[in-house]
Amino acid sequence: MATIQDVARRAGVSVSTVSNVLNGRADRMRPQTLKRVEAAIQALRFRPSKLAQQLKTGQTPLLGLLVPSMGNPMYGFIASEVETAASESCGYRLLIGSTQRDAAKEAAFFDDLLAHGVRRVIVISSLVDERHFENAAERGMAVVSYDRRATPGRRSLVSHVTPDNHEAARMAAAHLIAHGHEHLAFATVAGMTMSRSAKIAGFQAAAEAAGLRRSAKVIDGGPLDRYGDAVIADIGRAMGARLAAATRRPTGIVALNDLMALGLMAGLRDGGLRVPEDVSIIGIDGLALGALAAPPLTTVQLPVSAMARAMVKEAMAPWPREPAEDHEIVFAPAGLIERGSVASLRAKAAITGKRRVVRS
Amino acid sequence: MATIQDVARRAGVSVSTVSNVLNGRADRMRPQTLKRVEAAIQALRFRPSKLAQQLKTGQTPLLGLLVPSMGNPMYGFIASEVETAASESCGYRLLIGSTQRDAAKEAAFFDDLLAHGVRRVIVISSLVDERHFENAAERGMAVVSYDRRATPGRRSLVSHVTPDNHEAARMAAAHLIAHGHEHLAFATVAGMTMSRSAKIAGFQAAAEAAGLRRSAKVIDGGPLDRYGDAVIADIGRAMGARLAAATRRPTGIVALNDLMALGLMAGLRDGGLRVPEDVSIIGIDGLALGALAAPPLTTVQLPVSAMARAMVKEAMAPWPREPAEDHEIVFAPAGLIERGSVASLRAKAAITGKRRVVRS
Repeated sequence: MATIQDVARRAGVSVSTVSNVLNGRADRMRPQTLKRVEAAIQALRFRPSKLAQQLKTGQTPLLGLLVPSMGNPMYGFIASEVETAASESCGYRLLIGSTQRDAAKEAAFFDDLLAHGVRRVIVISSLVDERHFENAAERGMAVVSYDRRATPGRRSLVSHVTPDNHEAARMAAAHLIAHGHEHLAFATVAGMTMSRSAKIAGFQAAAEAAGLRRSAKVIDGGPLDRYGDAVIADIGRAMGARLAAATRRPTGIVALNDLMALGLMAGLRDGGLRVPEDVSIIGIDGLALGALAAPPLTTVQLPVSAMARAMVKEAMAPWPREPAEDHEIVFAPAGLIERGSVASLRAKAAITGKRRVVRS
Repeated sequence: MATIQDVARRAGVSVSTVSNVLNGRADRMRPQTLKRVEAAIQALRFRPSKLAQQLKTGQTPLLGLLVPSMGNPMYGFIASEVETAASESCGYRLLIGSTQRDAAKEAAFFDDLLAHGVRRVIVISSLVDERHFENAAERGMAVVSYDRRATPGRRSLVSHVTPDNHEAARMAAAHLIAHGHEHLAFATVAGMTMSRSAKIAGFQAAAEAAGLRRSAKVIDGGPLDRYGDAVIADIGRAMGARLAAATRRPTGIVALNDLMALGLMAGLRDGGLRVPEDVSIIGIDGLALGALAAPPLTTVQLPVSAMARAMVKEAMAPWPREPAEDHEIVFAPAGLIERGSVASLRAKAAITGKRRVVRS
C-alpha cells in the first residue's frame, strides 16, 4: 500500500501539502499542485481514510482480546463468544493476542494496540497485580479484566467481569459430597492466579461445611511452564497416573477446569482405574468437548455467552471515566451439568450419562 | 492517549505544524511556536513514535493470522505454533482475526490490517477463489495462504503452505485397508474447500488401489452453518448416531479431521456401538486432545511446527516480489499415530492403546 510519503514524492510536493489536500485545506493551493497530488493519489491507489480517521479520532472499530494462550479450548470458546457479541452489538472486529499470562507481554500488547489506535481491550489474565492495566487505562485504553474480581477498597479505571469462581468450585465439591464422597481433592497447577485462589477457597468452604475439611486436599500437578496445545491436560494426565499408583487417594476430585479434568480421566485410565467407579471427576467450565469424553464429563457450566456480552458492553462504555470501586460484574455459574463422571457412593447406583440437570 | 489534534489544540497551532515538529521540519518555525508544541507534547504525554513510524515505513512488528474460527482447537494449535515461530525468528507479535471462512470478512480484515500498518498476514482458508488474496498482495500485503496448493499454471503473488491433504487421507484409508477393512467411508461436512476435496480424492485413491472403490463412500454430515465451540464435533456426533441406527454401515471411517473423529466416536457410543470393536475411526490432524479420548484416537499427524515455521518465513520474505507459479511448499504428513481407535479385522486381535508407531 502506498504511503503519504510515496504520494508526496510522486507529486513532487511536501507531505504537509498532501496532508492539506487530504484534509480539505487546499483552498490556497495552486490548482496545478492540487491536480498533481490528486493524480498521484489515484495512480498509487492511496487509501488514506482509516489512517486519517485514526489520527483524527484515535479510534478504530477493532476490539483487542488478550488471552493466556490459544492452547486451552476454553479461551477459543470465550473468543468466539466475544467476537459474536462485538460484531452484533457494535460492528467491531476482534484482534486477539496471546500473552502467556505474562505481565510484560500484556503491557507490550497495550502499547502496540494504543499505538495502532485500538482503544478497547479485554484481557483474560487473573493476575493479582494489575498496575499495567491501570497504566494503560490512564493512557486512554478502556480495559476489561476477565476472571478476577476488583480489589476491595481500591478505586480503579479497569472493569472486572468474572464468573464467581468461589461458587463454581463450591458447587462442584458440594455435588461430590451430596453423592457420598468424603475423601475429596482439588486438582490444580502450581502458581496462584486470583481465579485459582478463589476456586480453592470455594472447594475448602464446601468441605468445611460438610465437616470434611481435614480430609480435603489440594493436589498441585506442578508448574504450567508453557502454554501450548493442551499442556494443562498433560499435567492432569500425569497427576491421574500418579494417583492411580498411590495407596491412598481421593474418591472424588474437583478439577481446576475441564481440560485438566479430561487429562485426569485419561491418566487414571492409564493407571488401570475406572471413572467414575473408582474415582469421580468433576470439571469447571462447560466446554463442549467435555460431552464427547467417555464417560462424558460432569461439570459446572460457566455462563460464557452472558459474560462475553457484558465484557463487550463494558469495553464499549463511554471513556474516559472516573475511577471507582465498583467496576465489577460477577456471574453465578449457569448450572451443573450432570453427565457420567461422578458416581454415587451412597446408592452404588450405576451412572447413566447425558442427563442434564441444572441446579442453582 | 492524546492525539495529534489534542497537541495542536493545546499549542494553538495547526496539525501540520505539529506534524512538522514531529518530522524534524521546524527549521523555519518561530522558536516560540516550536516551544509551545514541544510543551504540549510533553504535557499530554503524546507518543507519536509508532504512528509516525507507521506513516513513514508502513510497517509494524505485527503479523496477522486469519483463521476460520477459534472453535476448532486445531486452529488454536496452529496459532500457538505460528506465534512461537514469529516470536523466535523475528520478534513479531501475532494478531489473530476470525473470518468464518467468508471471503468478504477476509477482505475486510485485509483492509483493516493494511490501514493499521500490518503488512504480513497468514490466512487459514482453503477457499478455491483467492482473488481477494491477490488484491491484498497487489496493495503491498505479504500474504501466505494455508491449507491449499497453488493453482497450477497460474502466476501468483500469494505463498501457499499446506499439508499434503491428499496423502494424509490416503495414508488414513490405507491404514484401515491394511487392517482388513473393506467397507470404508470418509466422513465430511457439506461444502467444498480445497483441502476437503484433496482429502476425498486421497481417500478414494487408496480405495481404488485396493479394488474397494465401489464400496468406499463419502458421507456428508450437512453444512457447517456456524463456526462455534466444537460445531464440527456435533456434526460428527449426529452422524455417528445415524450410522449406529443404520442397517448397513462401514467398518472403518476416515474422519475429515480429529474433531469430527471425536464427535463420531461419541455418536457411535450414543447409539450403543463400540469403537473400535464395531466401527474403527481414524482422524487427521494429530491434536493432543485425541490422545485423551477413550479409546485414544488413531490419527495422521500433520507437521504443524514445521509448517508454522515455513509460513512465518514466507510471510517475512522480502516484499514486493514477482508473481510466480511456484510460491508453494507442501508438507508430507509427519506420520501415523497408532493408538486405539482402529481394530484389525484380520486377526480380530484386541487393540492396545498408546503404542506410537510412526509410519512413512
